Amino acid sequence: MTTVAAYAAPAAKAPLERTTIERRPVGEHDVLIEIKFAGICHSDIHQAREGWGEAIFPMVPGHEIAGIVTEVGPGVTKFAAGDRVGVGCMVDSCRECENCEAGLEQYCTRGNVGTYNAIGKDGEPTYGGYSTHIVVDEAFTVRIPEGLALDEAAPLLCAGITTYSPLKHWNAGPGKKVAVVGMGGLGHMGVKIAHALGAEVTVLSQSLRKKDDGLKLGADHYYATSDPNTFKELRGSFDLILSTVSAPLDLDTFLSLLKTDGAFVNVGAPEEPVSLNLFSVIGGRKTLAGSGIGGIQETQEMLDFCAEHGFGAEIELISAGEINEAYERVLNSDVRYRFVIDVATI
Amino acid sequence: MTTVAAYAAPAAKAPLERTTIERRPVGEHDVLIEIKFAGICHSDIHQAREGWGEAIFPMVPGHEIAGIVTEVGPGVTKFAAGDRVGVGCMVDSCRECENCEAGLEQYCTRGNVGTYNAIGKDGEPTYGGYSTHIVVDEAFTVRIPEGLALDEAAPLLCAGITTYSPLKHWNAGPGKKVAVVGMGGLGHMGVKIAHALGAEVTVLSQSLRKKDDGLKLGADHYYATSDPNTFKELRGSFDLILSTVSAPLDLDTFLSLLKTDGAFVNVGAPEEPVSLNLFSVIGGRKTLAGSGIGGIQETQEMLDFCAEHGFGAEIELISAGEINEAYERVLNSDVRYRFVIDVATI
Repeated sequence: MTTVAAYAAPAAKAPLERTTIERRPVGEHDVLIEIKFAGICHSDIHQAREGWGEAIFPMVPGHEIAGIVTEVGPGVTKFAAGDRVGVGCMVDSCRECENCEAGLEQYCTRGNVGTYNAIGKDGEPTYGGYSTHIVVDEAFTVRIPEGLALDEAAPLLCAGITTYSPLKHWNAGPGKKVAVVGMGGLGHMGVKIAHALGAEVTVLSQSLRKKDDGLKLGADHYYATSDPNTFKELRGSFDLILSTVSAPLDLDTFLSLLKTDGAFVNVGAPEEPVSLNLFSVIGGRKTLAGSGIGGIQETQEMLDFCAEHGFGAEIELISAGEINEAYERVLNSDVRYRFVIDVATI
Repeated sequence: MTTVAAYAAPAAKAPLERTTIERRPVGEHDVLIEIKFAGICHSDIHQAREGWGEAIFPMVPGHEIAGIVTEVGPGVTKFAAGDRVGVGCMVDSCRECENCEAGLEQYCTRGNVGTYNAIGKDGEPTYGGYSTHIVVDEAFTVRIPEGLALDEAAPLLCAGITTYSPLKHWNAGPGKKVAVVGMGGLGHMGVKIAHALGAEVTVLSQSLRKKDDGLKLGADHYYATSDPNTFKELRGSFDLILSTVSAPLDLDTFLSLLKTDGAFVNVGAPEEPVSLNLFSVIGGRKTLAGSGIGGIQETQEMLDFCAEHGFGAEIELISAGEINEAYERVLNSDVRYRFVIDVATI
């Protein structure tokens, strides 16, 4: 065991504070990663405040991890010390169910092991990326291509893959009209990726406050959802709507923006149930779907895709002491577009 | 104009009574059909009682129509007097939008013209199949193959196509596990069609009351949704769930029965909005979708498919004087499995 520094929430809704945690010894197939950067995801806040149900404390959040391998176990074949690597939302899965076999470890039928707020196969709680080091099985570690800066790469491990996976699955590409709802951490990545995939991209944001940014990142159109004309004008327009917001939406109104056979895909997740009129999907054979992160191989594919297209996330680099303030700013949608912790400051 | 006998609801929620209505002259592309049989669909009741919003009265319901052509307009090429034909839920559409061009007239972007409770292109209300005759454009008339009895064919025009279309669209077939929710007019057709398509079919019905029938019609398994063990045992089982019920369901519970990438498709439509936890679709990348009837060409394909497999609907033939009583029995799920009006009794 190695004692390492971390930032943790000691209890639900308590501010995060500096502490130390134990990391397991480097096993046969493990890599030890010196974490350089960790992104702050909205779901860190949901979990640290128990918005998604009972959680494990103390909690070290962080599942957007970028760093350098400093040691590898004897059975490791994919990585060597000095490699630039990332870890996302999960650090293990059963590896033998049909979903794991299909590269869909995120949907492991026995449940994957979350990077934090979960119990690992060793029976110990997992601790995330707000920490100087982490020990992870190489099977759940991905390579960050040379072309990507580590700080801008960190948010790709959740915000990037969470948007890339459904955009690919629902065929965003040339000739397709794609709307991205929300222009936050996930949304801004959705815009970049959908644009790079060749789709015609529309942002649907509460206001036009971030319009210039949206167009710069690749959006072709930008509308405010606070303006009722938006819904009249865009009725029946989209093949795919990717909703990245965790506030509850008027689903029936958003579904009216889809073409026949269109899909509205949620990657954001409101804490409360939403209301739906089933006629909204019957007329036009529409789909309301969801998607959660992506598999390990797909995460690698996404990182390679972003490197090839020359982009990471848009970030605001902060020190560890600013985490609690950053949480408040995320809740106020006051971040462009992802806070990333400089782990050297922990 | 021709005056013909019909059964109509004079006002919302009023009992249906015998009356007369006017049918338009047989136009260039029209066929005059002597109606032999008309099915009673649950949606007749929804509309006659204004459960789905304001309706047009007097209302002659009926969109499961089987009869014989007795006269054709000079421009008619598909049909001749003596032909056995059917008319379903729509009698016209714009015929030029992208959906009409794609054979998806049911999703006409300008709205199709319903067989009743709608306004036709001539500005007059449409009247449905509880009537001795109807005049319909040949483009919205389909052929009933010789192998199908007209009375058992009538319900195929709505209950058949409403289940056939989504079963085909979501790839029900060999190797697929399909559940049909509800064992009524739509549900019993869903079971027959899904079985004929080669899928492994499970019925999810409130009770086991109709189990023997379900297994006889092609179901491989039959479960009662009133038994909580059903949901434990079948968790993660199905590729496709086709819900034919119009009572509101606990969607989150039913979505838990899907495999990863599975789809829950509604063809039944509750009058009230339903509640949904979006995590139910995010975990396992699940789809909640809807489907409405089918296009004209697909309706013909469905009739040919049923004839080829040697089945129509299971029906209870009634006289016109029994319509009001039949409505009550439909509301009490007391019909095996579709009431069909012998139009000779009007």
